[in-house]
Amino acid sequence: MTASETAQNLSFVLEGIHKVKFEDRPVPALKNPHDVLINVKYTGICGSDVHYWEHGSIGQFVVKDPMVLGHESAGVITQVGSAVTTLKVGDRVAMEPGISCRRCEPCKAGKYNLCENMAFAATPPYDGTLAKYYVLPEDFCYKLPETLSLQEGALMEPLSVAVHIVRQARVTPGQSVVVFGAGPVGLLCCAVATAFGASKVIVVDIQQSRLDFAKDYATTGTFMPSKVPATENAERLRQENGLGAGADVAIDASGAEPSVHTGIHVLRNGGTYVQGGMGRSEIQFPIMAACSKELTLRGSFRYGSGDYKLAVELVSAGKVDVKKLITGTVKFEEAENAFKEVKAGKGIKTLIAGIDV
Amino acid sequence: MTASETAQNLSFVLEGIHKVKFEDRPVPALKNPHDVLINVKYTGICGSDVHYWEHGSIGQFVVKDPMVLGHESAGVITQVGSAVTTLKVGDRVAMEPGISCRRCEPCKAGKYNLCENMAFAATPPYDGTLAKYYVLPEDFCYKLPETLSLQEGALMEPLSVAVHIVRQARVTPGQSVVVFGAGPVGLLCCAVATAFGASKVIVVDIQQSRLDFAKDYATTGTFMPSKVPATENAERLRQENGLGAGADVAIDASGAEPSVHTGIHVLRNGGTYVQGGMGRSEIQFPIMAACSKELTLRGSFRYGSGDYKLAVELVSAGKVDVKKLITGTVKFEEAENAFKEVKAGKGIKTLIAGIDV
Amino acid sequence: MTASETAQNLSFVLEGIHKVKFEDRPVPALKNPHDVLINVKYTGICGSDVHYWEHGSIGQFVVKDPMVLGHESAGVITQVGSAVTTLKVGDRVAMEPGISCRRCEPCKAGKYNLCENMAFAATPPYDGTLAKYYVLPEDFCYKLPETLSLQEGALMEPLSVAVHIVRQARVTPGQSVVVFGAGPVGLLCCAVATAFGASKVIVVDIQQSRLDFAKDYATTGTFMPSKVPATENAERLRQENGLGAGADVAIDASGAEPSVHTGIHVLRNGGTYVQGGMGRSEIQFPIMAACSKELTLRGSFRYGSGDYKLAVELVSAGKVDVKKLITGTVKFEEAENAFKEVKAGKGIKTLIAGIDV
Amino acid sequence: MTASETAQNLSFVLEGIHKVKFEDRPVPALKNPHDVLINVKYTGICGSDVHYWEHGSIGQFVVKDPMVLGHESAGVITQVGSAVTTLKVGDRVAMEPGISCRRCEPCKAGKYNLCENMAFAATPPYDGTLAKYYVLPEDFCYKLPETLSLQEGALMEPLSVAVHIVRQARVTPGQSVVVFGAGPVGLLCCAVATAFGASKVIVVDIQQSRLDFAKDYATTGTFMPSKVPATENAERLRQENGLGAGADVAIDASGAEPSVHTGIHVLRNGGTYVQGGMGRSEIQFPIMAACSKELTLRGSFRYGSGDYKLAVELVSAGKVDVKKLITGTVKFEEAENAFKEVKAGKGIKTLIAGIDV
Repeated sequence: MTASETAQNLSFVLEGIHKVKFEDRPVPALKNPHDVLINVKYTGICGSDVHYWEHGSIGQFVVKDPMVLGHESAGVITQVGSAVTTLKVGDRVAMEPGISCRRCEPCKAGKYNLCENMAFAATPPYDGTLAKYYVLPEDFCYKLPETLSLQEGALMEPLSVAVHIVRQARVTPGQSVVVFGAGPVGLLCCAVATAFGASKVIVVDIQQSRLDFAKDYATTGTFMPSKVPATENAERLRQENGLGAGADVAIDASGAEPSVHTGIHVLRNGGTYVQGGMGRSEIQFPIMAACSKELTLRGSFRYGSGDYKLAVELVSAGKVDVKKLITGTVKFEEAENAFKEVKAGKGIKTLIAGIDV
Repeated sequence: MTASETAQNLSFVLEGIHKVKFEDRPVPALKNPHDVLINVKYTGICGSDVHYWEHGSIGQFVVKDPMVLGHESAGVITQVGSAVTTLKVGDRVAMEPGISCRRCEPCKAGKYNLCENMAFAATPPYDGTLAKYYVLPEDFCYKLPETLSLQEGALMEPLSVAVHIVRQARVTPGQSVVVFGAGPVGLLCCAVATAFGASKVIVVDIQQSRLDFAKDYATTGTFMPSKVPATENAERLRQENGLGAGADVAIDASGAEPSVHTGIHVLRNGGTYVQGGMGRSEIQFPIMAACSKELTLRGSFRYGSGDYKLAVELVSAGKVDVKKLITGTVKFEEAENAFKEVKAGKGIKTLIAGIDV
Repeated sequence: MTASETAQNLSFVLEGIHKVKFEDRPVPALKNPHDVLINVKYTGICGSDVHYWEHGSIGQFVVKDPMVLGHESAGVITQVGSAVTTLKVGDRVAMEPGISCRRCEPCKAGKYNLCENMAFAATPPYDGTLAKYYVLPEDFCYKLPETLSLQEGALMEPLSVAVHIVRQARVTPGQSVVVFGAGPVGLLCCAVATAFGASKVIVVDIQQSRLDFAKDYATTGTFMPSKVPATENAERLRQENGLGAGADVAIDASGAEPSVHTGIHVLRNGGTYVQGGMGRSEIQFPIMAACSKELTLRGSFRYGSGDYKLAVELVSAGKVDVKKLITGTVKFEEAENAFKEVKAGKGIKTLIAGIDV
Repeated sequence: MTASETAQNLSFVLEGIHKVKFEDRPVPALKNPHDVLINVKYTGICGSDVHYWEHGSIGQFVVKDPMVLGHESAGVITQVGSAVTTLKVGDRVAMEPGISCRRCEPCKAGKYNLCENMAFAATPPYDGTLAKYYVLPEDFCYKLPETLSLQEGALMEPLSVAVHIVRQARVTPGQSVVVFGAGPVGLLCCAVATAFGASKVIVVDIQQSRLDFAKDYATTGTFMPSKVPATENAERLRQENGLGAGADVAIDASGAEPSVHTGIHVLRNGGTYVQGGMGRSEIQFPIMAACSKELTLRGSFRYGSGDYKLAVELVSAGKVDVKKLITGTVKFEEAENAFKEVKAGKGIKTLIAGIDV
C-alpha cells in the first residue's frame, strides 16, 4: 500500500518557488449547512497556476504559507450539508472555485466576481483544488448532464472565463469578432463567440501551430501578424477578412502589447474591446484612437452570475467542444509534470487526474 | 463705411499656420428645403480651433485649402427653407456644427457623431462658422428660450461636449465622479455630473488658479496632484474625499498621461472611465489595473442624439451655469486676439462677436 | 400581346373593400440621387395586406384613395441615382419598404421604425410594392448574396419583423423562449430565437397542423393549450418543457388574449414579454402578475436599425431557413388569389410573382 | 409600572381580521455573526399593513398564525454580532425589512428583491418590526447621518420603493414624467424623479386635496382627470403640460385601471411605463397602443441593490424632503389608531413611535 493510498486527503502543495510536495491533510469539514464535500476527479492547469509555481506570486498576491494549487476541477459529491436541496451524494459536478461573501455591494449588485472578500481557490491564502477532497457551497457546484464527462467538467472553468469575456464584449448575432491569442482561453472565446452568433471569428497568434489548430476550431479565419506597425496589421486583418470599416469586437486573450494595439486599430467606430489576457501591468496604448473612434473597452475578471451555468449548457447543447482541447492527462502523483508541460507550451490543456481516478 | 460694413459675408479664414485673413465670401445658399440661413452672433474658441491656427492640422485632418474657422456659435435665423416647420426668421438658435449624412449605419443606429460622412464646421475641408452667415438644416438648430442669451447660446457647443461625456460615463444619482482638467470642458463636465445627480464631484488640475475657480463651480472638492506615483495621488484623492473603495466614475478632460493613470487607479472595481480630452496619440497605460478591476472605459467624441437639446434644457432650468465661464468677448475684426488669449491660457472662455453685433 | 405585356408599370391597386384592379401607372422617377429603381420580382402577402383588402383600414390608417398593395418584396435594380455607391444595375435586393424621414428625434436616436413621418409601403396614403417598379433609397435595399434566391429575398420582410421582436426580447444564449402563434412570424421568431442561442424554444398554437409543422422547424417543443385558466396552461407548459421557475422570454405573435395571459404567467420573475402580434386594441390583462414578478414588457413595431441586414445574414449563414415557409406562388395576374389563400389560412406563406417573372 | 414598561419585547400582533393584540415576546437572538439587534424607534404604516389588518391576506400571502405587523422602521443598534464591522451599539439606522437568501439565481444576479426565499417583515409567515426589538443582518441596516432624524429614517422604506420605481423607469435628466396617484409613494416618485433630473413632473389624482399638497411638492404640474375616455385625458395632459408628442415616462402609483389607460396613452412612441401601485389582479388594458408605440413596461417590486443607500443619500443631500410627508405620530400603545387613520385616508404618512420613545 503506497502512501497515497493510505492518505486521507492527499494534496499537492506549493511551498515556494518551484518547490512542491504531496501532503496528507485532514478531510475538510462542511462549514455551512449549504456546503457539500467533493471528491475531486480532474483538474486542469492554467497559466496562473504555473505563474505561482514559478514566481511564488501574481501581482499583489504572494504565497507566504504553503498553499494547495489548482482551481479548474470537477468531481463527485460525497457528502451534503443539511440544507442542500439540489445535489445528492454521487452527483458529478463542475466546481466553481471562488466563494463570494454574498454581503458586499458588488455581491448584492450581481457582480460577485468583484466581491471584496472573495475566497478563491489557489489564490493566497486560500487552498486550491488539487487534493482528494474539496468543500464548496451547493450553489457553486454545477451538476454535469450525463453526456458530459468529468474531464469535460474540469474544462468548465476556462470555458466560464471565455463566457465571461464574450459577455463583457456583448457579442450579438451577426457581429465580427477578432480574438488575439490561440491558447485555451482564446480558442474558447472563439467557440463562445460562435455560439453567440458571431458571423466572423478571426483568431490571431504568432505561432503557426496554434493557428493550424484554430483553423478547424470555431473560427472563420486565422491571422499571423507581420513585423509591421499595428495599424498595418489591422489594415491587413480587415482586408483579408472582409471586415469593412472594422471589426465589431476585439478580444485580447494574449496580454501582449502588439495584440492590444492591433485590437484597438482593427475595430470600427463604436466597437468594443475586451481585455481578457494578463500581461505586463503597464503598456504603451493608442488612447486617442480609442477616444476618437468612441470605443468601449472592458476588463474581464474571472466569471460571475450565470457564467458557469451557461458554460455547461453550451457544451451540453453541442455548441462548444471542449474535448478537442484536452491534449493530455497525468496522474495525480505526477502533477508537477503538468506544470512543466504547460510551461513548455506542450499541448493545449493538460489535466491532472484525481488521486483515486 | 468700412470694408466689413460693405461686406456681404465677411469670414475669418485660416490660410496656413498662423496665417489668417478676413475675406468677403458670397452669402451661402440653402441647399435643401429643410435648411435655414443663420446670422452668426457669437462664437467661442476652443483648443481645436487654436490647434489648427498653430499647426495647420489635427491628426489626419490637414488644412490644405483656406478654411473658415469656428464652430461654437449661436445666431439668428434670417431665412428658412420651404420645408422648415419649427423655426422662423428672427428665432435665436444654438448651432450644432456637424451635419451627419443620415444614411450610413452609425447614423441609422443613433450614433450620428460617428457618421462616416460627417461635414463638421472648421474641420477640413468644411468651412466653420466665423462668418456673417452660415447654413444649417433645421434639425441642427436649437431654439433658445427667452431666458438664454446668444452668448450663452454659443456655449451650448462645449456644454454638449460635456453632456456627451457624462452620458458616456452613464453617471447616475448618488455616484462619485472625479474630473481631470479644470478647463472649460472639465468644468462643464462637473456641472453636468452635478445636474445628473452625482453626490461627489471632485476636479483635479495642476493650476491652483483653475482649482480656485472650480471651488465655487459645481464641485464638492478639488485636488492638486503631487509629484508622486499615480497610485499615491489616487490614494490621497480617495482619502481626502471619502471615496471609500474608489470613485464610481473618472472623466479625463485633460489628455495628460498622469491624469489617465490617476483616473484608472482612483476607480472602484467595476467603475467607469471616460476619455474626453485629446492629447498624445499613445501613452503609457495601466492596462492590468483596468482589466482586474473590470473597469469600463469609453471614448467620447463630439456629441450626438439629444445632447444639444439637453444642454439647452440644463441651462434653461438653471441646473448648469455657463455665464460664469464667459470671461471675455472680442470684436469680429479682432478675432485673432481670441486665439492668442486661448493660447496664452487667459480666462476660461473667450467669445468672438458677430460682425454686426 | 396582352395588356400586361404592353403595360409600363402594371400595379395591383386596392380601390375599396374587396375591390381591386390592375392599373398601368407611370414608371416612378428617382426623387433623390441616392435612390434606385427596382424591378419587383416576388412579393409575399401578410395579414395586414389582407386586412386592408377586407376592411379598407387598419386602426387609424384608412384607405381613402386607390392604393397599390404589397410590402414584402425583392427585386432587381434597373436604375441607380447619381450618388449611389453600393448598388449597380442588375443587383438582386431585398426591399425594406418603409422610408424614414431621417430628421425627427426617433430617427436621429436610432429608432427609425418610430419615425414621425414614416412613408411605409401599402400603408395609406403610400403605395405598396405590388407593381412592376418601385423606388427606394439605396440604404433601404439589401443586396442578396448569390446563395439566396429572390423568393427568399421576399421573405426578408417577415424575417426582419421576427428579428426585431427577438431583439426587443433581448434573447441571449441559454435562455428559454415561449412563442405564441405558429404562423409565419411566430415560426420565424422561433428560428431567430434559436439562432440567438436560445436553448429551449416552445411554440404554442391552437391548430394541430401548425404545431405539426413547427415540430420540425426550429423548436424544442410544441404546446396545444387546453380550455383551462391561463395559469393552468402556463403550469403545464412549464412542467412539460422543464422550464423550472418559468421561461426567460415570452413572445406573442398571435394577438389573442389567452396567449397574452399564458405568456405572462409562464414567465419567471424578472422575465421578458414581447407583444409582436396585432389583435384587439384592448384586452383583459393580468397586470398584478406582471408587476409583482417585475416583468419587462415591450411592444415590437415593424423593424429598424440593422434588422434587415441581420435577416439576410442569418439566412445566408444557414441559421434560418425561410424556404420551408414558402408554400405557394401565384402569377401577378392572379394576385387576388394570394389574398384569398391567406384569408383561408392555406399554406404558410404565399408569394406573388412579378409581372415579368 | 405598566405592562408595557415591564415587557421585554412588546410586539403588536395581528391575530385575525381586525383582531390585534400587544404581546410580550422574547427578545430575539442574533442568528448569525453578521446580525445586529435593533431597538425600533419609529414605524410607518402603509397600505399593505392595513390590507392585512382588514383582510388577513394579500393575494397568495395569508396570515395563518399570529404575526407582528410593520415593516417601515428605523431604530438604534443595541447589540452587534462578532463579524459586524460597520456598525456599533448606539448607531441610528434605517431598517431594510426583507432578508434575501443570497444564494438563489436572482440574488446572485443582483436582483435580490426577486429572491426565491425572501423573508420579508410582516409578510406571512415572517414577523414584522412593530416590536421593541428586531434582528437584521448588518448589510440591511443603513446608518443615518447626523442630519437625519429617526422619523425620517422610518420614511426610507417608502422612499426606497419610489427609488426602485424611478430606477425601473430609467428616468434620465431632461425627461418628462407623469405620476399617477398622489399618495406617499406617488409623491415620493415625484421627488425622486425630480432628483433624477426630470424636467417635467406631473402628478395625477382624483382628490383635489392631494393635488393641492402635491402642487408644492416636487412637481411642475398637477392634473385632475375628467370623466372622459382615457385618450382624452391623455390628450389634455399633453396639452396642458407641453408634453409635445407625449411623456417620456409614466408611473402608476395608484393601481387604478383608468390611471393605467391614461398612462399608456400619454406616452410618446418608445416611452416607458412602470407599474408601481397594486390594485386588481386583472384589468382592461390598451395592449395595441403599447405595442404599436413600442413602449417598454416594467413592474416594480419592493427595492433592491443600492435603493436604500440612495434613499438615505437623497434625503441627506437635501434633494428629497420626507419630513413634509409625516403628518402624524401615535404612541406604540395606540398603534391600531394609525391603521384606522390610514384606512380613513387621514394625512399622508402616520408613524407609530417605539414603545420606549
